[in-house]
Amino acid sequence: MYDLIIHNGQIVSTSHVSSPDTWIGIQDEKIVCIQAGPLPHDASKRYIDAKGAYITPGGIDTHVHLQQLQVAPGDDTGDTFESGTRSAIAGGTTTIIAFANQQRHDKSLYPLVEEYHRRASKDGTWCDYGFHVILTNPTKAILDEEIPVLFEKEGISSIKVYMTYEARRVGDRDMLEIMLRTRKLGMTLMIHAENDDMVQLVIDHLRDNDLTEPHHHAIARTPLAEAEATNRAICLSNLVSSPILIVHVSSSAAMSRIRTAQNDLQPIFAETCPQYLLMLADAMRSSGHGGCGCSHSAEEKAEDDGFEGAKLICSPPLRESKDDLDAVWKGMINGTVTTFSSDHCPSAFDHPKGKKKGLESGKADFTKVPNGLPGVETRLPLLMTYGVEKERITVQRFVEVTSTQPAHLYGLQHRKGSIAPGMDADIVIWFPNGTIQEEISNDKLHHSIDYTPFEGFQATNWPR
Amino acid sequence: MYDLIIHNGQIVSTSHVSSPDTWIGIQDEKIVCIQAGPLPHDASKRYIDAKGAYITPGGIDTHVHLQQLQVAPGDDTGDTFESGTRSAIAGGTTTIIAFANQQRHDKSLYPLVEEYHRRASKDGTWCDYGFHVILTNPTKAILDEEIPVLFEKEGISSIKVYMTYEARRVGDRDMLEIMLRTRKLGMTLMIHAENDDMVQLVIDHLRDNDLTEPHHHAIARTPLAEAEATNRAICLSNLVSSPILIVHVSSSAAMSRIRTAQNDLQPIFAETCPQYLLMLADAMRSSGHGGCGCSHSAEEKAEDDGFEGAKLICSPPLRESKDDLDAVWKGMINGTVTTFSSDHCPSAFDHPKGKKKGLESGKADFTKVPNGLPGVETRLPLLMTYGVEKERITVQRFVEVTSTQPAHLYGLQHRKGSIAPGMDADIVIWFPNGTIQEEISNDKLHHSIDYTPFEGFQATNWPR
Amino acid sequence: MYDLIIHNGQIVSTSHVSSPDTWIGIQDEKIVCIQAGPLPHDASKRYIDAKGAYITPGGIDTHVHLQQLQVAPGDDTGDTFESGTRSAIAGGTTTIIAFANQQRHDKSLYPLVEEYHRRASKDGTWCDYGFHVILTNPTKAILDEEIPVLFEKEGISSIKVYMTYEARRVGDRDMLEIMLRTRKLGMTLMIHAENDDMVQLVIDHLRDNDLTEPHHHAIARTPLAEAEATNRAICLSNLVSSPILIVHVSSSAAMSRIRTAQNDLQPIFAETCPQYLLMLADAMRSSGHGGCGCSHSAEEKAEDDGFEGAKLICSPPLRESKDDLDAVWKGMINGTVTTFSSDHCPSAFDHPKGKKKGLESGKADFTKVPNGLPGVETRLPLLMTYGVEKERITVQRFVEVTSTQPAHLYGLQHRKGSIAPGMDADIVIWFPNGTIQEEISNDKLHHSIDYTPFEGFQATNWPR
Amino acid sequence: MYDLIIHNGQIVSTSHVSSPDTWIGIQDEKIVCIQAGPLPHDASKRYIDAKGAYITPGGIDTHVHLQQLQVAPGDDTGDTFESGTRSAIAGGTTTIIAFANQQRHDKSLYPLVEEYHRRASKDGTWCDYGFHVILTNPTKAILDEEIPVLFEKEGISSIKVYMTYEARRVGDRDMLEIMLRTRKLGMTLMIHAENDDMVQLVIDHLRDNDLTEPHHHAIARTPLAEAEATNRAICLSNLVSSPILIVHVSSSAAMSRIRTAQNDLQPIFAETCPQYLLMLADAMRSSGHGGCGCSHSAEEKAEDDGFEGAKLICSPPLRESKDDLDAVWKGMINGTVTTFSSDHCPSAFDHPKGKKKGLESGKADFTKVPNGLPGVETRLPLLMTYGVEKERITVQRFVEVTSTQPAHLYGLQHRKGSIAPGMDADIVIWFPNGTIQEEISNDKLHHSIDYTPFEGFQATNWPR
Repeated sequence: MYDLIIHNGQIVSTSHVSSPDTWIGIQDEKIVCIQAGPLPHDASKRYIDAKGAYITPGGIDTHVHLQQLQVAPGDDTGDTFESGTRSAIAGGTTTIIAFANQQRHDKSLYPLVEEYHRRASKDGTWCDYGFHVILTNPTKAILDEEIPVLFEKEGISSIKVYMTYEARRVGDRDMLEIMLRTRKLGMTLMIHAENDDMVQLVIDHLRDNDLTEPHHHAIARTPLAEAEATNRAICLSNLVSSPILIVHVSSSAAMSRIRTAQNDLQPIFAETCPQYLLMLADAMRSSGHGGCGCSHSAEEKAEDDGFEGAKLICSPPLRESKDDLDAVWKGMINGTVTTFSSDHCPSAFDHPKGKKKGLESGKADFTKVPNGLPGVETRLPLLMTYGVEKERITVQRFVEVTSTQPAHLYGLQHRKGSIAPGMDADIVIWFPNGTIQEEISNDKLHHSIDYTPFEGFQATNWPR
Repeated sequence: MYDLIIHNGQIVSTSHVSSPDTWIGIQDEKIVCIQAGPLPHDASKRYIDAKGAYITPGGIDTHVHLQQLQVAPGDDTGDTFESGTRSAIAGGTTTIIAFANQQRHDKSLYPLVEEYHRRASKDGTWCDYGFHVILTNPTKAILDEEIPVLFEKEGISSIKVYMTYEARRVGDRDMLEIMLRTRKLGMTLMIHAENDDMVQLVIDHLRDNDLTEPHHHAIARTPLAEAEATNRAICLSNLVSSPILIVHVSSSAAMSRIRTAQNDLQPIFAETCPQYLLMLADAMRSSGHGGCGCSHSAEEKAEDDGFEGAKLICSPPLRESKDDLDAVWKGMINGTVTTFSSDHCPSAFDHPKGKKKGLESGKADFTKVPNGLPGVETRLPLLMTYGVEKERITVQRFVEVTSTQPAHLYGLQHRKGSIAPGMDADIVIWFPNGTIQEEISNDKLHHSIDYTPFEGFQATNWPR
Repeated sequence: MYDLIIHNGQIVSTSHVSSPDTWIGIQDEKIVCIQAGPLPHDASKRYIDAKGAYITPGGIDTHVHLQQLQVAPGDDTGDTFESGTRSAIAGGTTTIIAFANQQRHDKSLYPLVEEYHRRASKDGTWCDYGFHVILTNPTKAILDEEIPVLFEKEGISSIKVYMTYEARRVGDRDMLEIMLRTRKLGMTLMIHAENDDMVQLVIDHLRDNDLTEPHHHAIARTPLAEAEATNRAICLSNLVSSPILIVHVSSSAAMSRIRTAQNDLQPIFAETCPQYLLMLADAMRSSGHGGCGCSHSAEEKAEDDGFEGAKLICSPPLRESKDDLDAVWKGMINGTVTTFSSDHCPSAFDHPKGKKKGLESGKADFTKVPNGLPGVETRLPLLMTYGVEKERITVQRFVEVTSTQPAHLYGLQHRKGSIAPGMDADIVIWFPNGTIQEEISNDKLHHSIDYTPFEGFQATNWPR
Repeated sequence: MYDLIIHNGQIVSTSHVSSPDTWIGIQDEKIVCIQAGPLPHDASKRYIDAKGAYITPGGIDTHVHLQQLQVAPGDDTGDTFESGTRSAIAGGTTTIIAFANQQRHDKSLYPLVEEYHRRASKDGTWCDYGFHVILTNPTKAILDEEIPVLFEKEGISSIKVYMTYEARRVGDRDMLEIMLRTRKLGMTLMIHAENDDMVQLVIDHLRDNDLTEPHHHAIARTPLAEAEATNRAICLSNLVSSPILIVHVSSSAAMSRIRTAQNDLQPIFAETCPQYLLMLADAMRSSGHGGCGCSHSAEEKAEDDGFEGAKLICSPPLRESKDDLDAVWKGMINGTVTTFSSDHCPSAFDHPKGKKKGLESGKADFTKVPNGLPGVETRLPLLMTYGVEKERITVQRFVEVTSTQPAHLYGLQHRKGSIAPGMDADIVIWFPNGTIQEEISNDKLHHSIDYTPFEGFQATNWPR
């Protein structure tokens, strides 16, 4: 009757943890039956014993950059769809949503989406995937003709825009026009909220003063720039009553602004990522390792080529103040955060074609180093360890932000995000706290990147 | 294999609505199996066809006053445990928690609890029940010796205190001492938060000026008194880090104070009731009917004995400003409200022993009329109608505040509050919106009270 | 010894009202002596008897548009420096600061300032005056070379920028660059804060639907656009620690955001104007008269050419909600408002060269009607009447917002803004409440405009 | 013509600093004339040269405890009216308001006030004085009969109540009844806002654990207790629309709550004191000296009898967190603070009758040490030094909080609080910053107390 039976685990939903003798029957990659106590025996079935384990719905990572088309030829140095999804599945993530990014000169999205499908299917993927479209030039034709087609025919349920980066930022009017369409179609609009002019002013002043070491990145992209843009995005959304998701919220001011909007019943959602819960800007100063506290020998430090800090450059940056980190945790706990993603945006530092961009001068320059961290594999173990097992959040809340709510945000709730009869059999098994005591190490990860920003962090649990 | 099968309904949890072909197998009053598609046929089973219906976990009403010991002899005019639970079950509520109230002179709680058990078991009950203990004189012996025993032996998981009513109010120091114990044991402390001195000052001034018609009740118990006491309770809780539940929140100021505390991760929970979502103080002025909009003939008005308004007297009162009502809805929607109860506190107005207290003078005097409304039966249909079917809240949120979260608050989450294998088979079936179009009428209710405050309100759905 | 003696008045400062027998001795247009009781008698002096009157420092109106260079040739239809200052002095204003506005193509400010001096001196002025410079194209040369010169040589102590209007708006980066200079020099930066993209989106939609009657102006320039831009300006200021003045604050959201910044010790100042205290958008619907409540005969209404509403078009617009008006009063009372100006920006409606722009189609179109109201003369009498005499504010606060604080904001505090020995003899005498009971009427005003938006409003006091 | 001329100083008001050549003519202890430039010469006059100096109105210290009737006989160990006012005048304070405190058993206030007048007049005073009445038992007779008499006949313009201290606290109902009277008469109601039950709970727990060293005082009287009581007082005031002054505000939460009320136009005033701007609780741990940073030799430490910390015990206590201190400064700067007083409440530690109460056991016990610090003399120099000369506040704001606003609060504005013709000649001269560079030392002070909590603090200015 069932292809697979998982027996004696505790199924976790956003509000319930089932009794420890729960059996799950799976057939044709769908969950068919959940029962208290044994399902009828059948010798031909495959069994997995989950005795003593939590069973959570498969992780959904909705913020993953893979094989994106870049401006410069040498940019494609990170994960492929194959290596990225391999890494995802190894970390308990069974669905990813990656980005198909429009260049300013692209007149149509169709060839773009086609190209991304080609890239994804080339070497196969290890887990389910979908696409967001990044708009940088939202022409009327794209908005009125192409987006509805992509939404209905291609299942593309989300658009992303940037309020920062010279090559990508869109103005307020464009954002409003996009919001009018996403609202109408029921799509999710993701917004990278940083005020570009504020950031650029500071960068220019820093560069004029030759202050370009990696840790100045945190000064350049001040929390004020995130707060301003977040408020602006919320006001724009408010004008046209259109739901938006502020991605990778990293500061107290932005989080608090979002909470106020949510309290007032505005449809504002928030995403955050492991790096904003676990690391501070200080980590960019030293030889890295993200404040994990592990010690380095004098020898190691001498060998340090100055790029350890640069590896932690992402945008928004790791914040300087612990108040920001605490506020992100608070948002994680009190419900402000809707979804928890990795913002996996990897660049290998020792690239076959030569050393990384930004190292040319022999000195890491934050204005040249590519932004972004790898993290699709470590996302769930880190939140399970630092969130659930350190008793900051419940395991139900873990399920909510890593799977159930992401599924709702992106229109997948009828197939994914819950363990229930009729749903996809995307299942993760977590054995209890304490059975694992190890440090995260890039050696054990499955991406094709030569470092992890979380090297040396604890992982007291890991999905089976 | 199963005693009962409910087939083809959509099970609702706090975050998921199952596919429409879901079958539930029940055995020995427990849910045993949930399956997408048919369970094995067996001629001896009882079947319920739920095709097209929502299936929600049984309602838990945690604020119900039944047969309470009163000061004066003529007070016991409301529902018995028998009639109250009959009314509950007819409205989709499968578990109630009633109150065992200490009088100031009671030196021990044991006889009290025993007496309440006697009362509840005398004529039987139609649904599950439990008790909260109301403390008015928390002696050291009660706190240190009796409460732990009642918690562990009698399953009493909650205490209630009043900050108002001369005969019941406890001081800040007593509240702190109680909080220290509830925190230690993991009990829930329910607080009726109104500043009694503020209320009494206004009542005295109104009485001095002969302003005692029912609608002055709303002026006497100003939202300011609720806001002050709510803040005080939160500060006291904060001092000793003890979780509390503010019951029947009725005003914008109190709701907003609670939200702030929740945002700051303080363990403050909120309850509200149908009357604070659906009626304003104005309804106490006229011949009543709670603002339902139904018309009354001149004849009816002439016959009005002045008591229609008095029937709506409860504490906190119906509020004068629509802002307060809107704020309670906002709290219901944005997550501030943890639990939705009836505060069923009935008094029959035409009592066998004579007309109601407060009518002696031939004129309804709000300072004498007993406070409290009946509502255990109408609670769920009203929230389904005015919340879910008017699209203010999702059906998942309905389940959250009427069942799942109440179960968690009172330690019942391992047996009640979710539809999952292993849980009690407390199940409510709701056929879709629009199949019913009727007005609530006391004729159709099952309590032993001669009115409902919700007479004439719509009910577009009713549990089967 | 003295050229002029004012005797037996009560001098008002921001915190003190002097005893009623105060004598002021003036010489060479300076206040020389203040004495309790008579100054030595001298037959040659000029005496003014102020018995029973308040004596306030001369009004300073820091937001006055006069004879501005416009884009289109027919635009110069309002007051000249001569008629504008005549109107000012007749309303108790002894100093105005007008605008010298850069056009986008102006490469230098020098000819501009020269031209404005020429205009102001052409026919003489009735009171003191100064200039702000409006920047629309802040080139490096202008910022680094010209502005310091204008500040030091020409006494230009303030710059204004617009965040709205296609022809004038400057971007965030330009605002930041300007702020860096104004901070360094100690100049005041005035900001017209409305998000242009938000406004334009609504205008485009209204125009597409042919909704261009005057009252739609209030919908087009939503409070949200003001709130967004105000927050952005405050964030930009915060980044570079530069003081700014948000001009003509008209909404609750903007006022509240400014208050928060002030509470946090950020150097954010606020200006408001009579129209935002006294009129609502509804006045643009009818035949006008600003909600003063005066009645109009059917005949008058029949004759109405549809332009009464158009006369009230200003930006930000009169607000639709009384909450906004109340919030502006609140800011006036609680100290948020730093300065109270007229934003005198007059356009005669029956212009010699033909009917007003916007009337071409025979139907007033808010997208074409010039924005701005005349008000330099009515500013002080309106605040004295509706503020002081209706007991919303004290007469000390009146002095603070109409004279003392404006003097400080624009670097005039050593000569103006207080009645004290050594200061300019800019003095206004107000006889007590109730001695005048009349309605404002354009007949009695001294500007060269053919209407006042405050026609029919009460003035229970008027400066002598 | 004048008895005294002060020439060439700069008179400071709340909004103006006069030109440096200002002459003041004084006659019969009243300011008669203020002139820019010389007053007519007359050989008989007394002259004071104030060249280069600021001239401020005499300080008004409205929170001074002198020779209060105490419960226990040995309590009268502090300053007399003679020594207290001598100390006041030496520090630039020309008016004090002291307390006449009702004991619970006092049936009438008349003998009480008489007794205080006797005490004050016994040895004479060096400056003007008045009384507040402290109510601990506000009987109807006192409220309705005596208070109006004392207000009209005795010029007692203020009442004080305590929300803490077993012997003094009054309940909410009593506060409301008092507020109704103070509002009617226009008196100021001063409130010491700390929740006594919260404080007592913590004290009991600390005492049970033998944690009674001085610095535990700061833990016992937590900011939460101040925040709760402050909110409650504001709610009570709000109910009856009665102005109140929250005295000695010491924490961020209380200050912020007051600001919110002020923003909403509620008549809530705030007082703070030097100790809450300049010292943290940590100073109670060590051998004292208030965090002034001066070093102590090992010898000094060995000789320390443990009482240095005890000398800093006041209520509310010095706060543990710098956030609180910063918030008090913020309130001082942004206008929340209405008045700045000393709360001079002195107790000599080496009393002639034997060592201080609280030392009996040989160990300082915070639960026994009398609360209160001496400070009437150091109040103005400290604010001038740490406020004005460190550029936190302007000298105008200094005048506002030390003189002008206190005069208004207590009905003295027609005689005191400003330097203007007709006012009392209460004048303080401050020579410029930097002419003095010394440390405060008890040797130089004029009270009869054997220590100052500000020993070693800087005073870069001192009144002449």
